[in-house]
Amino acid sequence: MNGAESLVRTLIRSGVDTCFANPGTSEMHFVAALDRLEGMRCVLGLFEGVVTGAADGYFRMKGTPACTLLHLGPGLANGLANLHNARKAGSGVVNIVGQHAIPHIECNAPLTSDIEALARPMSAWVRTSSDSRSVARDGAAAVAAARGSPPQIATLILPADAAWSEADGLAEVTGAPQRPDYSPQAIDGAAKILRSSGETLLLLGGRALTERGLALAAGIAGKTGCQVMAETYNARMARGRGRFFVERIPYPIEQALRALKPFSNIILVEANDPVAFFAYPDKPSRLKPEGCEVHRMTAKGEDTIAALEALAGAVGARAQDPKPQQPMELAWPKGALNPASIAQAIAMSLPENAIIVDESISTGRGFFPPTASAAPHDWLQNMGGSIGFSTPVAIGAAVACPDRKVICMVGDGSAMYTLQSLWTQARESLDVVTVVFSNRLYQILRGEFDGVGAGEPGRKAMDMLSLDRPPLDWVALGKGMGVPGRAVTTADEFSRALAEVTAEQGPRLIEVRM
Amino acid sequence: MNGAESLVRTLIRSGVDTCFANPGTSEMHFVAALDRLEGMRCVLGLFEGVVTGAADGYFRMKGTPACTLLHLGPGLANGLANLHNARKAGSGVVNIVGQHAIPHIECNAPLTSDIEALARPMSAWVRTSSDSRSVARDGAAAVAAARGSPPQIATLILPADAAWSEADGLAEVTGAPQRPDYSPQAIDGAAKILRSSGETLLLLGGRALTERGLALAAGIAGKTGCQVMAETYNARMARGRGRFFVERIPYPIEQALRALKPFSNIILVEANDPVAFFAYPDKPSRLKPEGCEVHRMTAKGEDTIAALEALAGAVGARAQDPKPQQPMELAWPKGALNPASIAQAIAMSLPENAIIVDESISTGRGFFPPTASAAPHDWLQNMGGSIGFSTPVAIGAAVACPDRKVICMVGDGSAMYTLQSLWTQARESLDVVTVVFSNRLYQILRGEFDGVGAGEPGRKAMDMLSLDRPPLDWVALGKGMGVPGRAVTTADEFSRALAEVTAEQGPRLIEVRM
Repeated sequence: MNGAESLVRTLIRSGVDTCFANPGTSEMHFVAALDRLEGMRCVLGLFEGVVTGAADGYFRMKGTPACTLLHLGPGLANGLANLHNARKAGSGVVNIVGQHAIPHIECNAPLTSDIEALARPMSAWVRTSSDSRSVARDGAAAVAAARGSPPQIATLILPADAAWSEADGLAEVTGAPQRPDYSPQAIDGAAKILRSSGETLLLLGGRALTERGLALAAGIAGKTGCQVMAETYNARMARGRGRFFVERIPYPIEQALRALKPFSNIILVEANDPVAFFAYPDKPSRLKPEGCEVHRMTAKGEDTIAALEALAGAVGARAQDPKPQQPMELAWPKGALNPASIAQAIAMSLPENAIIVDESISTGRGFFPPTASAAPHDWLQNMGGSIGFSTPVAIGAAVACPDRKVICMVGDGSAMYTLQSLWTQARESLDVVTVVFSNRLYQILRGEFDGVGAGEPGRKAMDMLSLDRPPLDWVALGKGMGVPGRAVTTADEFSRALAEVTAEQGPRLIEVRM
Repeated sequence: MNGAESLVRTLIRSGVDTCFANPGTSEMHFVAALDRLEGMRCVLGLFEGVVTGAADGYFRMKGTPACTLLHLGPGLANGLANLHNARKAGSGVVNIVGQHAIPHIECNAPLTSDIEALARPMSAWVRTSSDSRSVARDGAAAVAAARGSPPQIATLILPADAAWSEADGLAEVTGAPQRPDYSPQAIDGAAKILRSSGETLLLLGGRALTERGLALAAGIAGKTGCQVMAETYNARMARGRGRFFVERIPYPIEQALRALKPFSNIILVEANDPVAFFAYPDKPSRLKPEGCEVHRMTAKGEDTIAALEALAGAVGARAQDPKPQQPMELAWPKGALNPASIAQAIAMSLPENAIIVDESISTGRGFFPPTASAAPHDWLQNMGGSIGFSTPVAIGAAVACPDRKVICMVGDGSAMYTLQSLWTQARESLDVVTVVFSNRLYQILRGEFDGVGAGEPGRKAMDMLSLDRPPLDWVALGKGMGVPGRAVTTADEFSRALAEVTAEQGPRLIEVRM
């Protein structure tokens, strides 16, 4: 068995059963090992941003890491932006990055670059295998890092000669996974604050946004009168009818400051101390109001569910404590397409247990309240702010959950970044509906231009913010990659199209011409 | 004047007149400055790989750097692969990368990452401006680095508050550009070798491949009987009727070893000591035969033309020394599409002074000899091996040379990497013909799989190498981005299509279905 085979066997044995890949020459022995062995599904992406984003989506839905296969430094570089997003979302990923055979590196061949230096900014764990007999052990260490508490991005660099030379066999992932825990003192502190008189915000992130975490938070809020919110962007939220609906801290800084103004205490439940997405002249970076105290209850990697159970116990919350929430009434929208009518149509058409991947940016700002009344679903967002995240994440979610419908909502500017995703969706017959909001503008930047104090954009500036010349034809782009699509221009058409495509199987695209 | 304006004024004053851009919030003040000021053409790319590749193409044709505008760490990351290619090609580029306002960085907002660490692997010069009054001086230093000898990738990181706060004014690029020189001893050494008895190869790279450099090499070869070759891949070669035709070292390692076998001396004229593109089991990394001596005559950044003139003088080469070369006869091809008929059609249809951007990979292996008989043209290749280089480089070449036709020849696998380029070509009405060789396969990897000793690919391996399921429809993809296209399936159709689109103005696409 060669090094590549020892690695593939190690990955499969440790439960890594999916490889999102874009290989090159230096990875051919790894590909050959995948070819020979059973137990690893291989999914080709025609650009590495697709590959790494898919691994992120897979982890978010499955809870265990997939591996990626990337070609040397430039292949890794192409995948870094979505690794950035995965890292910020707390996803575990095992990257296998090919490298030249070790004696070839000093020759400075065209594809030579400093792969470790490229990997480090987006990886918590980086290692280059020194020889074929180390590869399996290194692979086991990479898996252990990726599925740790918290999960991490692990990048294993595999020289070609370490792949093709003789190895000893597979390696076991040693050491039980670190047992997540929480701090009882932090629970006591939180309970004391909740019993005190001031206005308190329970700010939820991570696993606090599972159905169970939300139910516990609802009980605590019902009992103590605290407010509950989620971070602005979240890796995965359980939502829809019967689940506790929490608003998120708004993105626009003025609204965010207003939303947090009432609070004298913020308790962080796997959430970050709230900060502005960007800095703006003469505005604060930290969003908490003056005098407000911020308390950490759990951090990433801790057992947030057990901590919330303990907190519920400490404040005496019971099953009947959650206050009933008034779901917004839904109806099929008519007339013009606008954020409100789009949101109604989406909320009406969501099939049970759907997965929403949300990169709707400006169009989607108002989608949240109406979809709280939709059928139960999961809602995935971009935690790292690097656009082009959603169409690949939809791939990974669909691979992880073949029985669930994935709805990817994406602005046209973001969709262009990783449009190669559509091809992989077609090849794998993934059950993904991509809804492209085509406003032919980096709409969010239109607002930010003014927001940072740059005034009113002139012709040259508008040219840098607009996608209208020429207009993108998303139906043609979908056709080019094998995904059937249609364009809609009214709310009625959109409703009908959504109802139809969600009833069908396989990838579909809807261009929403705004 | 704020920091952003001081930077834009500095860039314009120093001759940087083109900005390839994909900005975000943190770059809005730079955009606003571009908006207010005359003298900088702004070209929007819908993905950063397009932006950096365009800057590479611009430098290759213009000889002076353009700037890029990129959004924080992930925006830079998306552009790294084509910066890698630009670096290997010796292109000068000034990257302006936005950063959060300095006090915002420690907040670890979603888009925060280590931008300097991301920049360093592909940049010779990296700096973060510490405040608004340093920005102009830093910009001038970046330009000086980018247009140095040799030219370099310079990355200036611009915090948002350094952009929006008050500055003192523009800065001059200080210090005359370093005067390129060469080593007279190296010329003496080369002349001595050329007068000796052994078989000698003059291996050309960089500026040795200009019309003048080639003419000098032809005279030296005619006088001394040495052989002349170019490196496997070259940033820019003057080619076509009336120019000295040199073969390149073949890509396949067996052929490369065979081609270099006769030589007892290799003289490097701005070329690298020849190495294999990849390592293969039981094959050497260095291509020179045993006992062959390698001598460096000029390196990148030296004055290769003056050095060749000196060498011609030293060996007594005269204007009548070049041996006449027998141009291959050209005719419009008929019948089936294959590399030979495709090459004939391209050679027949090349308009005078065209720019060829060649990422034809496996299909194009035989394009070189017939196109030596075509009208005079420049031929640009990928020096870094990271695919997705050609469609953006075609943008930069067309912006740099608006009066010349650009023909971009690209395999389907490579074209998918940066297909967003087509949109920018349409927006800017660039005179670019994109010829996509659609073999629905990473054809080169089919050979490499065997070449590295991995045997015969099975079903899963072939799935990772093939693009056939579903087939890509390049005419639809072009339509989606505003570039008119047509598909051809015979040599006659291809010839007719090429003749027609080269006679038209503006971007066109031909899908060659193989």
